[in-house]
Amino acid sequence: MSGPSYVAVDWGTSSFRLWLMNAGGQVFGERRSDEGMTTAARTGFASVLQSHLDALGAAANLPVVICGMAGARQGWVEAGYIDTPAHLSDVLKGAAMVSGQARDIRILPGIAQRNVAAPDVMRGEETQLLGALGLDVSGKALVCLPGTHSKWVHLHGGTVERFATFMTGELFSAVARDTILSHAIAGADEAVDADAFCSAVMEAFAAPALSANLLFRVRSRQLLFGGGAQAARETISGTLIGAELAAGLAEREQATPVTLIASGRLQRLYQIALQRLSIPLNVMDAEEAVRRGLAGAAAAIWHN
Amino acid sequence: MSGPSYVAVDWGTSSFRLWLMNAGGQVFGERRSDEGMTTAARTGFASVLQSHLDALGAAANLPVVICGMAGARQGWVEAGYIDTPAHLSDVLKGAAMVSGQARDIRILPGIAQRNVAAPDVMRGEETQLLGALGLDVSGKALVCLPGTHSKWVHLHGGTVERFATFMTGELFSAVARDTILSHAIAGADEAVDADAFCSAVMEAFAAPALSANLLFRVRSRQLLFGGGAQAARETISGTLIGAELAAGLAEREQATPVTLIASGRLQRLYQIALQRLSIPLNVMDAEEAVRRGLAGAAAAIWHN
Repeated sequence: MSGPSYVAVDWGTSSFRLWLMNAGGQVFGERRSDEGMTTAARTGFASVLQSHLDALGAAANLPVVICGMAGARQGWVEAGYIDTPAHLSDVLKGAAMVSGQARDIRILPGIAQRNVAAPDVMRGEETQLLGALGLDVSGKALVCLPGTHSKWVHLHGGTVERFATFMTGELFSAVARDTILSHAIAGADEAVDADAFCSAVMEAFAAPALSANLLFRVRSRQLLFGGGAQAARETISGTLIGAELAAGLAEREQATPVTLIASGRLQRLYQIALQRLSIPLNVMDAEEAVRRGLAGAAAAIWHN
Repeated sequence: MSGPSYVAVDWGTSSFRLWLMNAGGQVFGERRSDEGMTTAARTGFASVLQSHLDALGAAANLPVVICGMAGARQGWVEAGYIDTPAHLSDVLKGAAMVSGQARDIRILPGIAQRNVAAPDVMRGEETQLLGALGLDVSGKALVCLPGTHSKWVHLHGGTVERFATFMTGELFSAVARDTILSHAIAGADEAVDADAFCSAVMEAFAAPALSANLLFRVRSRQLLFGGGAQAARETISGTLIGAELAAGLAEREQATPVTLIASGRLQRLYQIALQRLSIPLNVMDAEEAVRRGLAGAAAAIWHN
């Protein structure tokens, strides 16, 4: 009988995604909601999970593998961190079991960089890395995972050697919502103004120290020369992304391509920026990466 | 009879300060409130001003000179901008009259840099510059005015040649209030942790592109190594100020001192940072600067 053999869950701070899958990676059902860790910490992780499994009519004995913030200290069960240098296979071995449940539920650990000079943590991205690169990868890789907290990860032969998190996405939200620039971008939609975006990327990439000035110019430009909300929005976005790229690409070895793991609008923006900078690029969809990573984890844990 | 001969008002976006003064710069009375432009645009500029004059028992014929956002388009009466290169004496000549008032009320213009590649505006800082440097200054000056929107101004012989605004203060507020770092700094007070501040300044000064990463390290450090709210707060502050200094000082000519116009906690922080970077420094209190500038304007307008 072919059918789902396990459940894969990507449980972030503010989002929940679930797939019923089989060993071949086939998807039999999918659920999405905004019941992330923050919500589930109040309403109960077990009941959130069960409600989505019920909605899909999932069998009571299907095991569940989870990645993301559900494994944080404030999450369901703390899944700890694997320390750098961290081979991705160690992530699979470090899954925490959720006790007292009818079904077998495992939460994957994150990765920590316990370096006093450059401390850093990830949770969820290790599973995307696993899905995008696999365990048998050889050679060096530089991976960019844009988002609320963008990650730049240096790997060698499947080992995460070091990484850096940039608050780019969260800075964009805070600037767009809670500063004087909120007026400048009022009415902008999700369409991409590639010209405004690219010039901002190039300016901030060339002079990242000027970022806080480049942001204020958005307002000055509107006051003195007019200009639309769309261009203003993309200039803010391009400035923050350009500064991130200046740091992320500074440690790239010549000829190493960047592996970009992203979806939707962010994938489009980072792709435009990296192409404009003539950086060789591999692109993978972030959701496909996390699903593949969870499938790899399920295979390693249950040999199915 | 000695007594006040005019009223000086510094009317910002969110603050109002008023002094009764005479030609010698003597202060006879003072009022402070949070009835800045934003509030007064709703409640009425004339009535806010009159209520404070009444509270001090000011004579009905005392003239009033105002600087700041009261002269913006959304303010009381638009006072326009003097364009760069702008001699500070032109600011005095460009005052706008508020018509239909019983007393003589003038609002000083701001300064605009109508450069498509680097547009910028100031309103209020031109009066501080006037107060700090005077009209008869010779030679070059580089002035730093920290704040919500920090300004770095290049002058030559009393002429504002160019300037740049950095959203440093507003970024600090947005990051401290509206991002994941708000948890890291919960409970921090206004005390200065000079060690944490200085190391953050030096890190961001050396690698401003890393700013968004240095900010996230505040969280990672607490997660992995613990650490207090105070150090976290100063690290955020030092990171943003360090990046601003990297840009502001990049165009400083060798041996030119920085004139720092600031008050209170901001004065202390910028002074610590600039001294740590071995930059020769002149410091002037921001409030004294604006009062002196308004006194200079009153003298030029009414010859009193």
